[in-house]
Parts: sequence; structure tokens; C-alpha cells
Amino acid sequence: MNHIATAQSLKKPLPATLQTELKSLFGLRFSTAHAMREHHGRDESSYDPMLPDGVVFACSTEEVALIVKLCAREGVPVIPYGTGTSLEGHILALQGGITIDLSQMNAMVAVHQEDLTATVQAGVTRKQLNQELKDTGLFFPIDPGADASLGGMAATRASGTNAVRYGTMRENTLALTVVTADGRIIKTGTRAKKSSAGYDLTRLFVGSEGTLGIITEVTVKLYPQPEAISAAICSFGSIGAAVNAVIETIQMGIPVARVEFLDANGVKAINAHDKLNLPEQPLLLFEFHGSEHGVKEQAEAVQAITTEHGALGFEWATKPEDRTRLWTARHNAYFALLKARPGARAISTDCCVPISRLAECILATRADCEDHKLIYSIIGHVGDGNFHVQMLIDPNDHAEIASAEGVNSRMVTRALGMDGTCTGEHGIGLHKMDFLIEEHGEDAIDIMRTLKHALDPGNIMNPGKIVRW
Amino acid sequence: MNHIATAQSLKKPLPATLQTELKSLFGLRFSTAHAMREHHGRDESSYDPMLPDGVVFACSTEEVALIVKLCAREGVPVIPYGTGTSLEGHILALQGGITIDLSQMNAMVAVHQEDLTATVQAGVTRKQLNQELKDTGLFFPIDPGADASLGGMAATRASGTNAVRYGTMRENTLALTVVTADGRIIKTGTRAKKSSAGYDLTRLFVGSEGTLGIITEVTVKLYPQPEAISAAICSFGSIGAAVNAVIETIQMGIPVARVEFLDANGVKAINAHDKLNLPEQPLLLFEFHGSEHGVKEQAEAVQAITTEHGALGFEWATKPEDRTRLWTARHNAYFALLKARPGARAISTDCCVPISRLAECILATRADCEDHKLIYSIIGHVGDGNFHVQMLIDPNDHAEIASAEGVNSRMVTRALGMDGTCTGEHGIGLHKMDFLIEEHGEDAIDIMRTLKHALDPGNIMNPGKIVRW
Repeated sequence: MNHIATAQSLKKPLPATLQTELKSLFGLRFSTAHAMREHHGRDESSYDPMLPDGVVFACSTEEVALIVKLCAREGVPVIPYGTGTSLEGHILALQGGITIDLSQMNAMVAVHQEDLTATVQAGVTRKQLNQELKDTGLFFPIDPGADASLGGMAATRASGTNAVRYGTMRENTLALTVVTADGRIIKTGTRAKKSSAGYDLTRLFVGSEGTLGIITEVTVKLYPQPEAISAAICSFGSIGAAVNAVIETIQMGIPVARVEFLDANGVKAINAHDKLNLPEQPLLLFEFHGSEHGVKEQAEAVQAITTEHGALGFEWATKPEDRTRLWTARHNAYFALLKARPGARAISTDCCVPISRLAECILATRADCEDHKLIYSIIGHVGDGNFHVQMLIDPNDHAEIASAEGVNSRMVTRALGMDGTCTGEHGIGLHKMDFLIEEHGEDAIDIMRTLKHALDPGNIMNPGKIVRW
Repeated sequence: MNHIATAQSLKKPLPATLQTELKSLFGLRFSTAHAMREHHGRDESSYDPMLPDGVVFACSTEEVALIVKLCAREGVPVIPYGTGTSLEGHILALQGGITIDLSQMNAMVAVHQEDLTATVQAGVTRKQLNQELKDTGLFFPIDPGADASLGGMAATRASGTNAVRYGTMRENTLALTVVTADGRIIKTGTRAKKSSAGYDLTRLFVGSEGTLGIITEVTVKLYPQPEAISAAICSFGSIGAAVNAVIETIQMGIPVARVEFLDANGVKAINAHDKLNLPEQPLLLFEFHGSEHGVKEQAEAVQAITTEHGALGFEWATKPEDRTRLWTARHNAYFALLKARPGARAISTDCCVPISRLAECILATRADCEDHKLIYSIIGHVGDGNFHVQMLIDPNDHAEIASAEGVNSRMVTRALGMDGTCTGEHGIGLHKMDFLIEEHGEDAIDIMRTLKHALDPGNIMNPGKIVRW
């Protein structure tokens, strides 16, 4: 029996007492309607929905703690839900239980402009946060493709296009409020920029995907809006040339704010979706942040490098509206490709390797996609050595699904062989549990399992994800 | 009975069988000589030595694993030792046991110049690492005052003067090799720059001070040596003016590589120790890294800010030898002050607050030192909101010790009240265990204790530190 079937076989009916209690406590904010459960039982992965038994919309950390206490008493699974945009099956209710929707916890708790920090409730999305910050001269850089919630981004250790310069949720989360598996409320840190005070609870919960506790508030670092921003695009005759230009840029220590790669398939998709007419060849998008002069200096250095690697044209996008159009198109790339094949679902995967191995890893993965005649695109946050493969599959075509999963599996093995990781930013969820073992080895996985057992002895926190019980 | 006495009361004699085994396995690399034990039973804190029962010099991860297995079998404490330069009693053998000296594990495992990473054995010191990197064009920025070992720096989540730009061991450690409490060997990560693969074991062990496992190898990020470096110093009529200049520099987002504060007492001490003639007033030392033009731009911006805050003179140190002299003096500050009072010991403490509260926190702490007529200096990595108070005490004068501990305690309470942390970089060790509770609250401490119990069920890994059993 595979992992999913095993976990599902442990599913128990929701106790009637718990249902009555939740109804009396939360009224209309507790729902067992099928549509509501179905909406909360799927993410952006290609898994079929796995429905929770009920959904509660929580409005405060105290409410989350109360729900967890009630569920803990009954041994009922609890799954936190932000925007439902995870990609590896993170929020699927394998064993049923109660999904806690945190989207109504979308208040700004505090912006400390003078300290470059903000504390927000878990349901605040990244776009909302930046909207709230608009008049402060500050911004929050982390931008996964979707307009995800900060709680979800912390829980999955998200990153995005700016990570090459500003880091990921790992580096940018200062503190969390967390509801533990027994319903206690803890704070994992302070607003100090650094600390040597004891075990790093913040980073233990960042990336734990709801399996150790539920994140209800997030304190993040903010950054001054750069004095100057410019963007540039250039195309290449081959993927290798494009990626080698990036490798050299990073090795030279040029502090690019963003450097994104799209293969020809990716460019085609965004051309169609966003009505652009970019050359349908491997493409790099750069963004530079700094002083007027600094931005110019960086762009010139990058232009020299890309030219040396045979870039075809190096076009500037200095006007904010042009930049916005390009980056919006980049952020839409995932959905743009999906539209390219109506009725298809996407198997989306990512890995991350040391930068010197990036071209080799991408090229081999591309050859594998071609060999299997898949409809795919490869796009990536290549400055970090991180890339994504998105494969469109017919959900009824088992052979095609098997081909795509084969490409995924070989890509991970390839990345691990290069001393890379099985996922740079998508996380483990359900889909990469075996790869996690391949990456870490049984002993390290055993340490992870020990942590899970210690912090969630009843196995109620998003059970069946990351490590097998 | 206080914590130390309680822990010491649990001390058991070293089993004779273990002694025989260690002697036969390690020969002269195992010692029970008093001088050897005394050397390993003290750090740079003001605690009296607490001696281990024996010291083993390990040469490999496998040897460390073997020692831990033997000690685990007998329930004997194991304490890792790098350079003995920790400041809060981290390596004191509260309950005796075996200290594993890792200083002979000082091999470079791999330098991946093309990926900006290095893997070293735990005993490699920061200066050795940079010496080894000299011809690569790369460097490792993290620089606690002492020439500490990388293993010790990871174990205490060290930082130093460059952290404001480059981060701490938290941000710069990619992966660790760790020997667990039952003597297994695990790798906590890969060389990928980012990862969402499961629980963040790397950051769980970074800062765990040997209480969860023993770090035997460290993989760190490296950085290209900047194209240009310049340094500048300026003095101020008051501490407030100096610190406010720093606050504004950080709020403006100027990417200074270093900004260090010394109060007049600190300047006096380094003048005497390093034969300098700096004005004996509050002082800021800046360093700028970047392109020729970028460095100039940063320095001009900082000069404008410091002038606005009444800086007296803004002097450049562009020659490498002048810069080195200044930074060597800064790194000697701790020992310089110690020399100012022969026979004295130092109670050295640190805290870290959100930058906007830094001036207020330093000024109140200084007033407290003055009120208690202590011999002290305040120096700090002020760009991070982190500062140190070093108080020289006569080890036989209990009233003086109590005054210094009072200043320390009130400083921590003050920092916590400002949403800061009880230690920015020194760590918890023995000395700050109560402050850790004050900072995190009982429930979060209970989570830390749960982690300790889960990963070290026999309580043999550096017992009695960070959290009470």
C-alpha cells in the first residue's frame, strides 16, 4: 500500500461532539458543506482533492488555539489553509479532519517603519502587505508566483524572484506566533535583527508545512525601496549560453536583484497570455536595485557578460510600466503555460543546485522532457541555482503522467548528485516525501521524525506530510 | 540550590571501563591530566573552571561518533571544545564527563570556488579559513572577536563586525555534519543556496551549543573579495549622537559592510593597547565594500549623515595597512580592556534591540554602569542593534560582582522590553539561562526542552546548558 493509501486508511469519522462544539462556537464560520470542503481539499498540485471533514474560518490566534485544543482532545487532524496555492499537495486532508482557513486573519499587527520590520497576521498576502507599505518607502521582497499568504509562505519556506538578492522566508522571518499541537500559543523570537538566544524555533517552524504547529502571526524584515531600479532582457541562441551568463554574473558577485530564466516554451506561453512579442528563444530577465550610478554599473557589467556569452540584444526597461508588464508576465508564466493546453493539469516541480552545475542540470532535464515528448517549460530563479519544470499532463493519460513523474524523479536524483536539493522553494508536501529521504538519508529523516513525534505526539498537525509517522 | 549546584550534584565518577577503552583507542590523545582538564574546563567567561574527567583529541567525524557512542552507553556527558573562547560558560563541564577537543580536525574538506562555498572540519578557525582562501579571490566574512573555530561559531550562532552586511552563522551555514546523541552521523543539508526540503536541521543545530549534537563539519557561503574597500572613523561629543547617526544610516538602507561603536572607555583601552591616538570620545568605525564608485558613494552618504549628527572629523583610512591597524585594534578591544585592570576578570554581556531603540538602550545601560561605579566599556556591532558591555571585576569582591550582574540583568530586561533579545551573539551557555526564559516565556522554553529531551534523551550532550532538564 502506498503512503497515501496508508494514511487515508487511518481516517476516522469526525466525532459528533466536536462538530456540535465547533458549530456552537463558530456559527457560520464553521462549515461542512461539500463545496467548501472541496475548495479546501485541493491546492495547485495535480493531486485529486482530499477533503477535510469541516472548515473553520478563524479570526484570531486564540481561536486557532481553541480549535487545536478541541481537535487534540479528539485526535482529529488539523490543517492550516492560507490561499491554497501550494504545489506539492501540502494542504490535502489525507486523513480528513478540520481545515483552519486563516484568510480572515488578514490584519496588519504592526509596521515598525523605523526598524524595517512588520508583524502581520498569517492571512495577509504578499501583495496586500506591499500595498499597506506603499507610503512608507519600504517594501517586502519575497514573491512566490502566487499572491500567497505570509503564514503559508513562512510555513513552506517560500522564496521567489528576489531571493537572489534578499533571501527567502528563512532569512527574512524574524519571529512567529505559533499554536502548538496541544493548543498553546508561543512566540518564537523578537524583533531583534539577530539573536543567539537558544534553539532557533523560528526556523524550525519556517518550512515545517503545518506539521509541527500553526503559524498565526509573522514578523518579517522590510527593505527601503531602492533609489533606482532598472530592468533588462536579453535572448540567447541556447539554454547553455543563457545559464552560463548567469553563472558568471553570480560568480563575479554582481548584486543583481533578480535574474530569471525562461526557456523558449515559457516565452511562447507568456507571449500568448500577456500579448508580448518577445523573441521565442531562451530569455533572461534582470532587475537591478541601487543608487542611480550603482544600477547603471551593475547593468553594464551584466551587459558585458551576457554579450560575451552571445546574448542577442540587451534591451532596457527603465520605465516602471514596462518593467511591471515584464514582471507580471513572468509571474503569470505558470498559468500562461496551463492555458496552452485546455483541460490539462500541471505537474510542477523544482530543484536547486550549486550554481556551477546549473547549466548541466537544466540541459539534462530538458533533454529528458524532449525524449518523453512532454509539453513543458523550464523557468527559474537561476541566480540561486533554482529552476522549475512545469509539465502539462492529461489527467486521464496514465502513461503521460508516468513520463512526467519519471522526468521529475530523474531531475531530483540528478540535482542530489550535484550536491543540490530536491526542492528549492516548493516544499515537500505529499509529493516529495521519498525524495526527502533520498536527499537526507534515513538517519537524518529519523531525526526529523523524532522532532515530529516530540512536538506533535498525537500526529494531528497536517498528518502524512514531510515525514512518514 | 541554584542551577549550577543542582547540575553539579548529578556528577558521577567516570566509569573505569570507559577510561580503559578510551585509553586503548586513543592512546596519548586521551588525557586525564589535571592541567589538560583544567585548560578544557574554562572559557573566557568569569566562571571558575569546571573540569571534565578526561579530554579526547578527535581526528575525524567517525572518532567523534565512536566517543559519543561509548559515552552514551555509560550515560557520561560529552562536551565539544573548539578554541575555548566562548563567553557565557558554554563549555564548562558542569557534570564532568568527556570533553572532545576538535582542534586537530582542522582540514579543509573542499573549497568550491565556482559555487562560493567551502566545507571545513569543525576545528578550522576563521583566520585559517581566510588564509586558505587567500588566492581564490573569495573570503569568509564572519568574525567574532576571537579566532574561533568554525564548529564553535556554528554551535554558538556567532557573528561579528561584518554581520550587518553579510549576516551571521545562521545565514551563512549551508550544511553541517553532526554526530547525534546516540552516535549516528548525519548531514543536515546540501550545497544548494536555498532549500525547502523538510525541517531545517541545519538551523536547529546552529546555535544549539553542543546540547543536541556535535558539529564536526561545516559548509559555509563565501563571498567575492570586494573590488574596493574603504574605511572611515569619526568621533562624537556624545554616545547618543554617534548611535543616532548609525540608526539613520541603517534606516536609509546604506549597505555598510561594518559599523562599529566604541565608547570613550573602549577607545582609551585600545589607544593604550595598540598604541593609537584616537580621540577618547565615542567613536564610529565604518567599512564600505563595493565597486570603486559605490564605495565612494556610500562613504559620502555616511559622511553627510554623521556630519549632520555632529561628528567631529570624518577621517578616511584607504590604505590597507591603516585599515588593518584599526580593525585589529577593534578586535583586540576585549583584551585591551582586560589589560587595563591587572588581575581583574571580565563579565562580558551582549544584547540586541530593534535599531530605533538602540541609543536609548545603550544610554540607560551606560548610566547604570556609571551609577554602580564600574570599570566598563560599551562597544558594539551597532548596525545590527547589537552591543556589548564588558565590566572588569575583582574576582574576590562579591559586591562588585553583584553590581556587574545587576547591570547585566537590567540591561537584558531593558532590551526585552524593547522587543530585543537577551543575546545577539554570545549565546546562552550557563549564564543566560534565566534570561532565555524571560525572553521566550515558559511555553516556548518548554518546546525547547521537548526538543532537547527528544534528541538527547540521556541528557549527555553538554548537559546543563541553554535549558534546564
